[in-house]
Amino acid sequence: MGTVPKPGEAVIKIQAAALNHRDVWILKALYPGIVEGSILAADGVGTLVHSGSSSLKVGQRVLLPPSVGWESDPRAPDSNRYGALGMLPLPGTLADTVNIDGKEIFPCPEHLSTPEAAAIPLAGLTAFRAVFTKSEIQKDQHVLVTGVGGGVALFALQFAVAAGANVYATSSSEEKIKLAVSLGAKGGVNYKDPDAIYNLNKLLGNNQLSAVVDGSGGELFDHYLGLMKRGGIITQYGQTASRKGVTFTMKSVMKHVDLRASTMGSRVEFKQMIKFIEKHKIKPIVSHVFNGLTQENMDKAISVLDAGQQAGKVVIEIDETPRSSKL
Amino acid sequence: MGTVPKPGEAVIKIQAAALNHRDVWILKALYPGIVEGSILAADGVGTLVHSGSSSLKVGQRVLLPPSVGWESDPRAPDSNRYGALGMLPLPGTLADTVNIDGKEIFPCPEHLSTPEAAAIPLAGLTAFRAVFTKSEIQKDQHVLVTGVGGGVALFALQFAVAAGANVYATSSSEEKIKLAVSLGAKGGVNYKDPDAIYNLNKLLGNNQLSAVVDGSGGELFDHYLGLMKRGGIITQYGQTASRKGVTFTMKSVMKHVDLRASTMGSRVEFKQMIKFIEKHKIKPIVSHVFNGLTQENMDKAISVLDAGQQAGKVVIEIDETPRSSKL
Repeated sequence: MGTVPKPGEAVIKIQAAALNHRDVWILKALYPGIVEGSILAADGVGTLVHSGSSSLKVGQRVLLPPSVGWESDPRAPDSNRYGALGMLPLPGTLADTVNIDGKEIFPCPEHLSTPEAAAIPLAGLTAFRAVFTKSEIQKDQHVLVTGVGGGVALFALQFAVAAGANVYATSSSEEKIKLAVSLGAKGGVNYKDPDAIYNLNKLLGNNQLSAVVDGSGGELFDHYLGLMKRGGIITQYGQTASRKGVTFTMKSVMKHVDLRASTMGSRVEFKQMIKFIEKHKIKPIVSHVFNGLTQENMDKAISVLDAGQQAGKVVIEIDETPRSSKL
Repeated sequence: MGTVPKPGEAVIKIQAAALNHRDVWILKALYPGIVEGSILAADGVGTLVHSGSSSLKVGQRVLLPPSVGWESDPRAPDSNRYGALGMLPLPGTLADTVNIDGKEIFPCPEHLSTPEAAAIPLAGLTAFRAVFTKSEIQKDQHVLVTGVGGGVALFALQFAVAAGANVYATSSSEEKIKLAVSLGAKGGVNYKDPDAIYNLNKLLGNNQLSAVVDGSGGELFDHYLGLMKRGGIITQYGQTASRKGVTFTMKSVMKHVDLRASTMGSRVEFKQMIKFIEKHKIKPIVSHVFNGLTQENMDKAISVLDAGQQAGKVVIEIDETPRSSKL
């Protein structure tokens, strides 16, 4: 149950882990750079059993970062040691314990349940960087978050709402649009509706979008520009609905609209995000919780993600039986 | 010869004007929003004959801005009065005199000849914003400027060199690559050469590009990403070689490489640019000078631009005969 910590390493007894699409791709061997023997999952919350170089105390509840080796550069990872948890040489959180450099862990906000806390790291960090560092979203702006239902999109929605922006959402599910509205969105449209852009324009009234946070590059993508202000920003953290990429046109150039790229974030951004979640008492949206790290639970959890049935994060609570989910 | 100035308006006796591709498109009625009766050209230098709201003195040599109504917003034009010179309701500089709000004019750097000064406004401002505000180019970075020979590209090259960056260039002409190297570029490649990217990679050695400043979206565009650092920035100020736009892929997302849009700039950026040109004693590259605002000179100047024969700006010195080049 866990290896002996190296100098400086903290040891965390995992209470819960959350899954990401990334884990599904790794299981399907579709993820680049995959290493056999990796332990899955980048998201974890647990109890500190050995402090290492951390100033936190044994017994304290801590959040693990989804990646390590990216200190502070706002543009991109600033070291070659950069990597995400859930792939060797780094540990995965679907395990009883994780050893990690003590400086990488942070106290877990107290208002969160264990599954809520586990939901945060990867999706929360990706959303935080996409919303603030890249899209520069501010109070009173009108902004669009696409594909709510996904973990990153829901965090992006919650963060933008908490920052005082007027947020609009898209989804293929009326349920998920209702969820978005219940979280503070001004409204949403079904992207499968042929009138989606017309409806979105109507929702906006006389306002124009300052930012779009998008993870898909789906069919509506080319229409966002027409709804945007001069100088707006589109940030993409993925392209799940576009194998060939998206198009950047002369109209974007004339309108000063940037197309920005984002994935995960730095340790500085992770720290800012935890503070922001604490300040605004944000409750992450947990879709499914499976209790116990069993093969059956893993199969169920992966199939939920694979079918896109979730609205929010899929969490595995780790039971007391020593084991881990290895490739 | 000129209209009576409105309150606050300064009157400038034009000494020289420069042409841009924009003027060729306006003449061909290919430019959006064109208004009959407009006087051509956005670039001008002249002598102040009436100060209006300006604190500059009659007789002083002043630079006209290429556009008005954009004060300071780093993201995009911040007023609906925003427009470029050379199209009604704004004046054009291919005239004996121009009336313009006194706050829009600036003293002309003393180290410049009249044609050099006329070459600056539109191309210089576009390049300055693309290089610094949008591409965030800094000392010691390795950066690519494409299509040197164009006015914007040559300014971008000179500004990036003056800022201490290592600049590489592309062109279809060996002469223009030589010109780029004479201006401080580390080297350049012919974009028509099938080995252009291989050669550029060789020039870079172990270095990677932090930024690309591009006005074409040409055939090589998709290959720049492979030569770039994580977190790099591609800025486009035009897409002259790509009618359908350029592609932004998942590889860009994973590499945190933004695709940014830029055209012209604010009054604040114009002022910073003039200061930068003064500080670094930058000499704009003038390709052709035609003496006198005659139909014959206009025809020659337009045909040079239309054929892309220029390396730098095409300037018309205004003679003493009162006339203007109206549509």
